[in-house]
Amino acid sequence: MFSEEILASRTKNMGASAIREILKVVMQPGMVSLAGGMPAPEAFPTDLIINLARTVLEKYSSRALQYGTTEGFKPLREQLASYLSGVGVTADADEINITSGSQGLLDCLGKVLISPGDKVVVESPTYLGALQAFAPYGPDYIELETDSEGVVPDSLEKILWEHKVKFVYLVPTFQNPTGKTIPVERRQKIASIIRERGTLLIEDDPYSSLRYRGTAVPPIHKFAPDQVLYTSTFSKTFAPGLRIGYYTGPEFIRKWLVLAKQGVDLHTSTLNQALASEYLAGGHIQAHLPKIVNIYRPRQEAMLEAMEKYFPRTFNWTKPEGGMFIWVEGPKDLDLDPIYQQAVGEKVAFVPGKYFFALPGSGKQTMRLNYTMKDEDTITGAIRTLGAILERSQA
Amino acid sequence: MFSEEILASRTKNMGASAIREILKVVMQPGMVSLAGGMPAPEAFPTDLIINLARTVLEKYSSRALQYGTTEGFKPLREQLASYLSGVGVTADADEINITSGSQGLLDCLGKVLISPGDKVVVESPTYLGALQAFAPYGPDYIELETDSEGVVPDSLEKILWEHKVKFVYLVPTFQNPTGKTIPVERRQKIASIIRERGTLLIEDDPYSSLRYRGTAVPPIHKFAPDQVLYTSTFSKTFAPGLRIGYYTGPEFIRKWLVLAKQGVDLHTSTLNQALASEYLAGGHIQAHLPKIVNIYRPRQEAMLEAMEKYFPRTFNWTKPEGGMFIWVEGPKDLDLDPIYQQAVGEKVAFVPGKYFFALPGSGKQTMRLNYTMKDEDTITGAIRTLGAILERSQA
Repeated sequence: MFSEEILASRTKNMGASAIREILKVVMQPGMVSLAGGMPAPEAFPTDLIINLARTVLEKYSSRALQYGTTEGFKPLREQLASYLSGVGVTADADEINITSGSQGLLDCLGKVLISPGDKVVVESPTYLGALQAFAPYGPDYIELETDSEGVVPDSLEKILWEHKVKFVYLVPTFQNPTGKTIPVERRQKIASIIRERGTLLIEDDPYSSLRYRGTAVPPIHKFAPDQVLYTSTFSKTFAPGLRIGYYTGPEFIRKWLVLAKQGVDLHTSTLNQALASEYLAGGHIQAHLPKIVNIYRPRQEAMLEAMEKYFPRTFNWTKPEGGMFIWVEGPKDLDLDPIYQQAVGEKVAFVPGKYFFALPGSGKQTMRLNYTMKDEDTITGAIRTLGAILERSQA
Repeated sequence: MFSEEILASRTKNMGASAIREILKVVMQPGMVSLAGGMPAPEAFPTDLIINLARTVLEKYSSRALQYGTTEGFKPLREQLASYLSGVGVTADADEINITSGSQGLLDCLGKVLISPGDKVVVESPTYLGALQAFAPYGPDYIELETDSEGVVPDSLEKILWEHKVKFVYLVPTFQNPTGKTIPVERRQKIASIIRERGTLLIEDDPYSSLRYRGTAVPPIHKFAPDQVLYTSTFSKTFAPGLRIGYYTGPEFIRKWLVLAKQGVDLHTSTLNQALASEYLAGGHIQAHLPKIVNIYRPRQEAMLEAMEKYFPRTFNWTKPEGGMFIWVEGPKDLDLDPIYQQAVGEKVAFVPGKYFFALPGSGKQTMRLNYTMKDEDTITGAIRTLGAILERSQA
């Protein structure tokens, strides 16, 4: 009845996500999926949430169920001001806004900032959800050069001198998909470059709390608070199904983001914001985070050990100190697509890395592996299977 | 530091909402607000929600806290299929999708369908939230002629013959802001017109469950299921702070709406969808709706009685059989702006009706009154005050 003709011109940019199809494949019975990016359900404080729900409804009563302001639930913003100071982000409660997951921010950023053809700078590879959020607004991407320590600052400087860009989007800590963390010296360099060029930088930081070893690295926001919009989420530290993200950043940008969000969803669930607020207020996050880390650390160790044992010498991979992903690079001329098909046939799924590049054509020899959803033995077995397939491809 | 220069071209369409400023005024201490459109907090099943939270976490455990599909939480979609059949909307569970409030749908509709300059047909006046959702996508509006029975079908026919339109947006039952309901004969006529013209119609139906007298009118969807996208929400029948809306409609349109929503917020809160699902599954909605109606009916009656008593004869207003609003029209040459200022000075707030028109310049002599948030005596007192101000304006 209705056809393409009814669609807006921007809708052509929203192609069906190939990764969405992959994630359907992994739902098949018996499949061991290293493809997703979900937290382990056993990492959720499920029992606690029942108690928090009672606390919230006793404390706030109908206020937790009523319409709220677009800016966010005041008690949560106050709790976040204190929580964020602990991770190196200085912001008052009224400088912190709540979104429906960090995805909700990414969409509003695209809506408020990107005119078709505007230039947006991203890592290569970068977070797929950001590409999906920005796509309908028609950006032209410029890819940053990266090495084993993430973004190469000189590459950023060169781009910002050569191009007029709307903003730079980075996931500096335990990046999705690579797991890479930009070291502090490079962060300072990046901050100084964007200060000098007057550029807006989006620092997306969902994973920094999931640190299994090593020492914390301060956010880039700390070195350029007037130019960095810092965003994070409760999806990895509390529960993703609540869809609570937050951000702080330059007031001028925040003002427009709030206005855009009003048209998008009025505001984020009041009940869930109140639950997150009590999760912080009761000190539960400090008690619960080590439990999450203790679930993921051995899983990551099991994966890295098995890769060492079963993966061909011609492959390289990241050894992140935290987060949810390991990034694998095969020999340059390898195409992982047929290997993906073989792996699925042998009931092991992963995501071919090519989907994480803003400019298509790159990363055919790469893959992303997730270790949060399966126990150590399952991970070891899946890596053994995958390793054997990779060995055959190199024969 | 950052200035207008960084904004997208579409952002100029997102002017700061005047109604937002008005709603700030009504927060002043001592103000009796007839301005908002919020459900009464005493109409929320607050105690029930604590029990439902326990049920949900026992029944679904971590599933209620995990990422979910963009289409929506399956148990809720199944419950809605059965619930919707009771209000005259026939749809299978997999033809029903969940959104973050009905606002979430309106934003995605704009994103997927409206290219700048595309024609969208709306009632005059219409729902402000729809105008806000569509604005960034740059539609050109065409206003339908309306009378005491809502949309005049001949006006729709004429518009659809003369213009190529993307879609028609209607709130056919207890409309916001007028309270008007389109009678069944007109609905059939509208359905036959859009069928003949092959036009998409958005039927926004948040209020039809709030019926205080008279008999239910079937949705337009019933008469043109292949052309009508029907949407409603739990905001008026359960709790708005949960942000749960839903829709069903043509498959081609739904497919693109789901894809757009993936970029906007991935999915709507799983926990809140599970709560809504249990609200329906346990039969709670049938038990609770009469309680809501019994709170609002006497408030509406008190307002209508007081208006009869205190408003000047030169004013006319709607007498809706349900919903949340009464629409007032003063003499044609009246400008309600100075009256609004006087009323606020005497601690009574309302929304000047001019804000609800897609094309500015109309409705200077109109106002919208809400009766759900205050008890009968307060409403009577506020209408007495307002009536005296209106009388003075006519002297």
